[in-house]
Amino acid sequence: MISLGIDVGGTNIKVAAMNEKKELLEVFETTTDVEKGYGLFIRKISNIISDMRKKYKQKLAGCCFAIAGDVDSNNGVLRYAPNLSGWKNKYIKKDIENLSNLKCIVQNDANMAAWGCFIFDLKRKFKNVAVFTLGTGIGGGIILDGKLYCGSSSSAGEFGHMVINYRGEKCNCGNYGCLEAYCSTYSLKKNAIKKIKNLSDYIKKYSMEEKELSPKLLYNAALKGDPVALKLWSEYGVSLGTGIGNVILSFNPDRVVLCGGVSRAARFFMPYVKKRLCEFGIKAPIKFSKIIVSRHYNVGVMGAAAFVFEKR
Amino acid sequence: MISLGIDVGGTNIKVAAMNEKKELLEVFETTTDVEKGYGLFIRKISNIISDMRKKYKQKLAGCCFAIAGDVDSNNGVLRYAPNLSGWKNKYIKKDIENLSNLKCIVQNDANMAAWGCFIFDLKRKFKNVAVFTLGTGIGGGIILDGKLYCGSSSSAGEFGHMVINYRGEKCNCGNYGCLEAYCSTYSLKKNAIKKIKNLSDYIKKYSMEEKELSPKLLYNAALKGDPVALKLWSEYGVSLGTGIGNVILSFNPDRVVLCGGVSRAARFFMPYVKKRLCEFGIKAPIKFSKIIVSRHYNVGVMGAAAFVFEKR
Repeated sequence: MISLGIDVGGTNIKVAAMNEKKELLEVFETTTDVEKGYGLFIRKISNIISDMRKKYKQKLAGCCFAIAGDVDSNNGVLRYAPNLSGWKNKYIKKDIENLSNLKCIVQNDANMAAWGCFIFDLKRKFKNVAVFTLGTGIGGGIILDGKLYCGSSSSAGEFGHMVINYRGEKCNCGNYGCLEAYCSTYSLKKNAIKKIKNLSDYIKKYSMEEKELSPKLLYNAALKGDPVALKLWSEYGVSLGTGIGNVILSFNPDRVVLCGGVSRAARFFMPYVKKRLCEFGIKAPIKFSKIIVSRHYNVGVMGAAAFVFEKR
Repeated sequence: MISLGIDVGGTNIKVAAMNEKKELLEVFETTTDVEKGYGLFIRKISNIISDMRKKYKQKLAGCCFAIAGDVDSNNGVLRYAPNLSGWKNKYIKKDIENLSNLKCIVQNDANMAAWGCFIFDLKRKFKNVAVFTLGTGIGGGIILDGKLYCGSSSSAGEFGHMVINYRGEKCNCGNYGCLEAYCSTYSLKKNAIKKIKNLSDYIKKYSMEEKELSPKLLYNAALKGDPVALKLWSEYGVSLGTGIGNVILSFNPDRVVLCGGVSRAARFFMPYVKKRLCEFGIKAPIKFSKIIVSRHYNVGVMGAAAFVFEKR
């Protein structure tokens, strides 16, 4: 039996095929084409399912969507996704099951990343795990007693919008002082522009354009010892440490796992996360929880594929 | 069968006796006498257990301690409690079971208040519940899937020390900007002193002494329409709303329950809690969770007594 994980982003769809031993068989991408409409999207996925059935010459166990947005996982409905504008209250589970006759799960992408970390990084060794996805924004996922915890209306784990600095920076969500307002691709870029006195020199130095003031560029600059980049990562670490501390005090997990693109800069921000955690006064749960960085690049789509095999 | 809940504070011990129908038979208090030592405390509890056996002429089902402090509930050990100084790493469960031959549970007081709210306010009607205890400090307790969630090292639910204002007010725990630094008996008093320009007039007006600048006095002053007191409760509500919002975004519970002495001023701070929650950008879980105030004064010790009857 083969399962499919399907990560749907605003630009690309990433598909992972996995066998029952949880071995990743392949990962490939295709375009989402949001503007062409939801109907075409469903037919595209349905075609991929047909292709995979032919290719692997066996029955598929099911597919699991991982979507950055508000998802009703009980009913398999995409309620709303900021990057998939116009697709509101879409019955993805029903539509795929009707068209492809394949068991379908719809989940939040951070939840599936959390499941991926739990299965592939932690090998199910721990009961309670909190996962932070560090990317364009900050997402969160929670494993409790070895099971995915989605909350009462499938919205648990919104760690990115915990307020860590009441009356602080404006966040994209509309509130002020959210963790994401300090730890996201856009906040890194905004802070970089503030800190770099002579932006054109900086841009020349790293042979880039302003729009490339990305986490990757800031990572590469930090590798070269650039003081502005190092300072930015230290501030990122202090804010992230505050958010991680809040989550540890609430959940008292065995492990906190960081994943997502920006987690690859961990060597620069992790010392500041740890220093920040030492400032928390309630020591027992802080000392108890270990923080690790996921080793897997495709942990979200891998988690989705693995989740198909889970009994629920 | 009768169960005993035993709430141990720095000054008083509160004992509740309960039958299997979860009817409260009696609640009484005695002094803790911390300075007389742990040995005497254990003998005192043991004598109470003997007295209750004689009084109710039946077998006791067990007893459950509720203690404000760091508790290892798996092993029944009080690791540390700020109000019971000197009592570190005390094997309460073992000591009581040896001396009184009675099943003994040791729990954190906020966890037991959460259990009390779940059983007596919510009648187990909801699966996922977050409870805030509003008193001298702020505690928290979590019910997930209808069970008490204590975390991986019995430290979950430390909502009072979530940071809501990074680099904000100093908290008693040593960190800065904790929820408790804004919502506690001492922060209310500190803010009152700051706000009241002519303290002696204010004190005269309410015929009291400065040390009585308590939540109760500020509640009574608010009842009389005192603008300073009303302002203080509005600020309390805004800060508490931030903390509640963070917990809702993390756990996505069905209900949030407020209990503890200060919750009785809810009529003055709740409108500001609700207003604050409207400012959160992630609307779905915020709208989903209803916030209620516990109707029970002794909900902590009642929760402890009820917890004895729970299968675990």
